[in-house]
Amino acid sequence: MGATAQRRLSNSASGLTGHGANSACRLTVLGATGSIGQSTLDLVARHPDRFEVIALTAQCQVEALADAARRHNAKLAVIGDETLLGELRDALAGTGIRVAAGANAVVEAAQEPADCVMASIVGAAGLRPTFAAAAQGRRIALANKECLVSAGDVFTAEITRTGAELLPVDSEHSAAFQALAGADAETIEKIVLTASGGPFRTWDAAALEAVTPEQALRHPNWSMGAKVTIDSATLMNKGLELIEAFHLFPVGVEALDCVVHPQSIVHCLVSYTDGSVMAQLAPPDMRTPIAVALAWPRRMAAPTAKLDLAQLGSLTFEAPDEVRFPALRVAKAAMRRGATAPAVLNAANEIAVAAFLGRRLKFLDIARLVEDTIELAERQGAIAPAACLDDILAIDAIGRRLAAEQLARYESP
Amino acid sequence: MGATAQRRLSNSASGLTGHGANSACRLTVLGATGSIGQSTLDLVARHPDRFEVIALTAQCQVEALADAARRHNAKLAVIGDETLLGELRDALAGTGIRVAAGANAVVEAAQEPADCVMASIVGAAGLRPTFAAAAQGRRIALANKECLVSAGDVFTAEITRTGAELLPVDSEHSAAFQALAGADAETIEKIVLTASGGPFRTWDAAALEAVTPEQALRHPNWSMGAKVTIDSATLMNKGLELIEAFHLFPVGVEALDCVVHPQSIVHCLVSYTDGSVMAQLAPPDMRTPIAVALAWPRRMAAPTAKLDLAQLGSLTFEAPDEVRFPALRVAKAAMRRGATAPAVLNAANEIAVAAFLGRRLKFLDIARLVEDTIELAERQGAIAPAACLDDILAIDAIGRRLAAEQLARYESP
Repeated sequence: MGATAQRRLSNSASGLTGHGANSACRLTVLGATGSIGQSTLDLVARHPDRFEVIALTAQCQVEALADAARRHNAKLAVIGDETLLGELRDALAGTGIRVAAGANAVVEAAQEPADCVMASIVGAAGLRPTFAAAAQGRRIALANKECLVSAGDVFTAEITRTGAELLPVDSEHSAAFQALAGADAETIEKIVLTASGGPFRTWDAAALEAVTPEQALRHPNWSMGAKVTIDSATLMNKGLELIEAFHLFPVGVEALDCVVHPQSIVHCLVSYTDGSVMAQLAPPDMRTPIAVALAWPRRMAAPTAKLDLAQLGSLTFEAPDEVRFPALRVAKAAMRRGATAPAVLNAANEIAVAAFLGRRLKFLDIARLVEDTIELAERQGAIAPAACLDDILAIDAIGRRLAAEQLARYESP
Repeated sequence: MGATAQRRLSNSASGLTGHGANSACRLTVLGATGSIGQSTLDLVARHPDRFEVIALTAQCQVEALADAARRHNAKLAVIGDETLLGELRDALAGTGIRVAAGANAVVEAAQEPADCVMASIVGAAGLRPTFAAAAQGRRIALANKECLVSAGDVFTAEITRTGAELLPVDSEHSAAFQALAGADAETIEKIVLTASGGPFRTWDAAALEAVTPEQALRHPNWSMGAKVTIDSATLMNKGLELIEAFHLFPVGVEALDCVVHPQSIVHCLVSYTDGSVMAQLAPPDMRTPIAVALAWPRRMAAPTAKLDLAQLGSLTFEAPDEVRFPALRVAKAAMRRGATAPAVLNAANEIAVAAFLGRRLKFLDIARLVEDTIELAERQGAIAPAACLDDILAIDAIGRRLAAEQLARYESP
């Protein structure tokens, strides 16, 4: 459990940053046109005195990026796709907003002086920019999963080295972060993330074998992208979140667990040695965890629906079934294995989910393919400690290649 | 809402006290032989390096007091009943433990140098000793209800004057305290205490008219004394807790509410402007809130049952019915009226509950008698701001007298 010392959170008193109520927070948003980026800017617009927008980046949505940059009077707008530089320049002509394009420009945007960087680029593309923000010792509101799932050890080491702060934006981790505020590690007994259970919570194994992409894409509580919706249906999502939690919070793998809670109102529960269990509840709206990350250790208003428990009536909980939902078991095993096992897990899962969505893989074979890929990687000696981000990118590529090779064995004839 | 400035809690960073892990906490327990006192000493026995017991007091249980004093190597043992001094002296002969007796000696025990005073004397008898601890600027773990219900304005003014700290020991207020830790007042939207609903939660009005003391004394979740069990059945208990919460926490009456939650697992929920609702859950065991108060801002282990949500299955919530349970409405009105209205409420309720237990008053007449008494006190000009504890004791006596006078009107012929 050597990672413990590397994990660093900012919810202890010592981690408080300086900008008080009177000085605006200089904010950069990486992935400004995505769902988290847009929700972030929605909150920024509601608190105009509180924020000064530094840099905004997007991969290819020029118009939305230019619009956001103008509305928020950003200093810099960066488009990831280099071929779109001209379009962006035209869109922002005469505004005085600097423009740039390309992957390196996105990294440079992350390095601009700022008090807080919202790291909301989805997928592996978010790794280099978020690492760049960490290298600058910034406060990072982290919405990118890969930094912790694939690159957890390396990323948290970088955070520790530079004194950066990490504030999780995922609802479950934000809930854990709030429920943990200020706690000594030795008084934490358990961190339990909740899982909606997805659309197939009550389905039996035979029915699960026949699940179609259309069925899997109907999530009961959250409206999300296709990849994360499938992960939510397999419960792989919860496994990935456990791995993230392991890197975020000062507990061992045995203290991390999840419970199925179909209403998605309670997002995490933290048990302490004194018998107290602190939980965070909120209606499903990402603006709450974003507001928490942006304002911590204080709070700022978010225009979310109010929770009415009496109207809700009942919150239910059940143990997750790792037999019907083997992805959770496979992810937990990868978490326990550590080193690059979670990176291979994540890479293989991306290949498997894409294959499922392309009707080349059955629903339950997603977890099987991932498990096989990790075993294969282990046999090939690819599961080993990573020293730097390049190691992670290399193992990510290996995981994808091995998973793609395995895929043929599973494909429906 | 002039009381806001007077309310003082120790869960902000500025309120942290000094004794760290390495110096033992000098602890005095007022009411050491009662349920809270015994649970406190149970925890102390489990953490021998953490505490140094200074003074223990009891009203009349000599043997239990002497036993506790010996076991915990107390410096001082005080029995409230003066006639029992000789018995206490004999019981502790040769131990070197100082002994004393009488109400003034209990007050002096509260004034002994200590880091923390557990104020767990039940009822009006707890007022003077707890005020004495407050006058010394001590950290007070408060289990006595009357200090806040009857004497709230005066007590919190004394706490503010001396810089004493207040840590609530009641499960609901401890839950609120934990869920509020460090929050700015302006970010708190609502504090919702939970109520079990008592044994008559689902009874209709006609059935409630005929409730017997035996029926009312069967509480579904907690094993408590007769008075508080009846208060729990009428929901007056929750009304009294709302008044306490008003004095403990920096919110107005409109931000305070309760919700019926039959499982008594969630004890309080605090809603914030960002949409987050922080809740504390725990199996019903007073050692949890006691441990919280003793160790805050850290935590210490308590040997309580572990919460297993999956096994529990479901947590339910419903709006309280102030028509069937009018005591809640009457208590809320007294909270809004302020001044000495809550003191009259509390005094009249004690008379009414005693009359109910003595079969001299019907169950639903408890709230009616209390409401009538407050109205009578108002007409007589007795509802007015109190300046000191003596004012409170005087109005308490008036409330009891008026309630007793009213009682004749209600008594069954």
